[in-house]
Amino acid sequence: MPKSPLSFLIAARQCEIGELEQLALTSELVNAIGRLIHALQKERGICNVFLGSQGTRFAEQRLQQVAECERVQQFVRDHFDALDTAPSRVRNGARLFSRIAFVLHALDALPALRRRVAAQAITPDESTTAFIRLIAGLLVVVFEAADSATDPEISRALVAMFNFMQGKEFAGQERACGAATFASGHTDAARQQQWLHLIESQERCFEVFTDFADPAVLNAWNVAQLAESMAELERLRRTGCAPNAGGRLDANLSQTWFDCCTQRIDAMKTVEDLLAANLRGLCERKIAQAHAELRDQKAILDELSRQADAGPHAPAHYGPQLERSILGLVQEQAHRLQVMSDELETVRAALNERKVVERAKGLLMATRKLSEDDAYKMLRQTAMSQNRRLLDVAESVLAMADYL
Amino acid sequence: MPKSPLSFLIAARQCEIGELEQLALTSELVNAIGRLIHALQKERGICNVFLGSQGTRFAEQRLQQVAECERVQQFVRDHFDALDTAPSRVRNGARLFSRIAFVLHALDALPALRRRVAAQAITPDESTTAFIRLIAGLLVVVFEAADSATDPEISRALVAMFNFMQGKEFAGQERACGAATFASGHTDAARQQQWLHLIESQERCFEVFTDFADPAVLNAWNVAQLAESMAELERLRRTGCAPNAGGRLDANLSQTWFDCCTQRIDAMKTVEDLLAANLRGLCERKIAQAHAELRDQKAILDELSRQADAGPHAPAHYGPQLERSILGLVQEQAHRLQVMSDELETVRAALNERKVVERAKGLLMATRKLSEDDAYKMLRQTAMSQNRRLLDVAESVLAMADYL
Repeated sequence: MPKSPLSFLIAARQCEIGELEQLALTSELVNAIGRLIHALQKERGICNVFLGSQGTRFAEQRLQQVAECERVQQFVRDHFDALDTAPSRVRNGARLFSRIAFVLHALDALPALRRRVAAQAITPDESTTAFIRLIAGLLVVVFEAADSATDPEISRALVAMFNFMQGKEFAGQERACGAATFASGHTDAARQQQWLHLIESQERCFEVFTDFADPAVLNAWNVAQLAESMAELERLRRTGCAPNAGGRLDANLSQTWFDCCTQRIDAMKTVEDLLAANLRGLCERKIAQAHAELRDQKAILDELSRQADAGPHAPAHYGPQLERSILGLVQEQAHRLQVMSDELETVRAALNERKVVERAKGLLMATRKLSEDDAYKMLRQTAMSQNRRLLDVAESVLAMADYL
Repeated sequence: MPKSPLSFLIAARQCEIGELEQLALTSELVNAIGRLIHALQKERGICNVFLGSQGTRFAEQRLQQVAECERVQQFVRDHFDALDTAPSRVRNGARLFSRIAFVLHALDALPALRRRVAAQAITPDESTTAFIRLIAGLLVVVFEAADSATDPEISRALVAMFNFMQGKEFAGQERACGAATFASGHTDAARQQQWLHLIESQERCFEVFTDFADPAVLNAWNVAQLAESMAELERLRRTGCAPNAGGRLDANLSQTWFDCCTQRIDAMKTVEDLLAANLRGLCERKIAQAHAELRDQKAILDELSRQADAGPHAPAHYGPQLERSILGLVQEQAHRLQVMSDELETVRAALNERKVVERAKGLLMATRKLSEDDAYKMLRQTAMSQNRRLLDVAESVLAMADYL
């Protein structure tokens, strides 16, 4: 049977609903990944202390945390297994699945890493690097999820979520960097620069998060920022990484620093849980609303068809007034989708920063025959030494592409 | 059964193939739409002459062309009917289907329009406006198709195609504008401005087309540009719309102008057919290549699994060397997808111009309570009177959003 304009109107709306339902599933996956990242961050910190103390500290905590991680890992794997991997079911499927393949591969390598940690056959730095890479892989999955959202409001929530998770990860790396610096009893310019860079990267992420998060979440975040531990944290940052701090540090501050950071990161997890709950609620509301609108639209179209059938024309020919009603519906829908798509583009611009950095990295890898890690280090090094933002350096690199 | 990293690698590749197959179908739809636009452009021109001559000229040609149009219309409708409108099957489904709903509605209104033309119950301008709106609706479907492409090479071809079709449509409008101007025997500043604007809009489209078309198509285009009729066309343009042409025109030039433009537009159709054939070939090659790569990848993965099974570890645990091979595959795929996505973004930037204009139009509609047509006229009027590009005016409008 030939399809009418009305059937395409309905099909367009059903596509929207399908995309929203897909987004709700992806959002659940993002929440699960957030839990795993949090557990891995904790394990990373514990391993660091365990290895740094030649196994004398945190041995018991480490085993407990490994058990916790394995539980959450299984939870994430269940989500991966539940994904419909048939072609065309998931928007952006090729990229999302390829990122998940990386994560699964890294998760498969975890037991071996843990055996080496248990046997103290690995340095704290090597262990930290392995965890950082796995967490980065998980964050890329979240990024792809945010990048594939087709609804501007959900996209906003996912952009806020991704930036918050990325900021929290920089905070975790700062915890490790600071703990190691204090524990070593001294610091130098390179350590200080690395530390300052982690603070700046965090702040950049939280700025974007602040721009995109909804008021309830922002409020929770602002409360967390006022906590006493934040003042303590800033004092320790000043001691540890201010350029005039001199070389020597009190090694006993390492534990104070670690506890203070942990308190902050745990508070972040509370905010992240709120973000996740809001995202879930948003998806549910949007799906319910789209279903209601579809019902309304169907009712109007049924009424139009009934009037048309009752009229003097064949069913395919509506009177001029009905024609105008249908045209109104068609134009309204096209206009609404256009507005949504414009909003979406504005929101997605916030994801642009990471893309520009990725592109600059790719350019350096290709032209300088660098590994991915080395290309990133080169960008970061330039940013630190020129005291510029990573984004600005990446843009300069791309602008100079012809010269490279 | 839990999914392995390898199964996600395969799933990612299968998603790519699914997207390519979808693009091949969309490309066929674009070709069909191109044929319909060409037929409608011809009918529009014939109706213009028929109505302008009080039905004394082109009466027979009109009936023939209506029959031709109805044949091609059915062909396009068949393509619409063949589309899988189930949710999540077509990328960008919501927007594409909503645009198709508009087109189908406009096609349903064609018989009534044709009755009014036959009865000479409509002015040439009204008839032209109705055809322009329908063709614009068809071009928006092509635009959405180009905007939804996920493969950078196919996206390039679709961007070239869309701009060529849009340029050809401006050429068709120029034919009508010039024919009416010559036929009226005189011209004025407003006519001249409108005419010059149509020339400029065409040239802008063909510039983008030239940037994105492949060498074989470009060559055909350059040959067409050298045709004798082009010199004739330029001479007539100078006579008809140069500011110093004065008020009076030779009405007999109307037919010469019409024939000259028709020759040019028919030559454009040949270039468009070449574009379409190339696009079809490109899709077929890409799909074949992706299938071959999937087969290769499956063979490697089977080999890896076989080695793993034969080894001392449980199937889920590969040796360190196999681990590295798998990691290599995973990273290679992620890198390839990243590069593709970067290229895609560059290509899609060319579609940005239309989006900026649409957004500025939407802003004017909302803030000035204008209809879509009036908003566009306002932008075009400003561009003409300030002698600036439409894109620049649209960007200024958006930049001044807070003041509107």
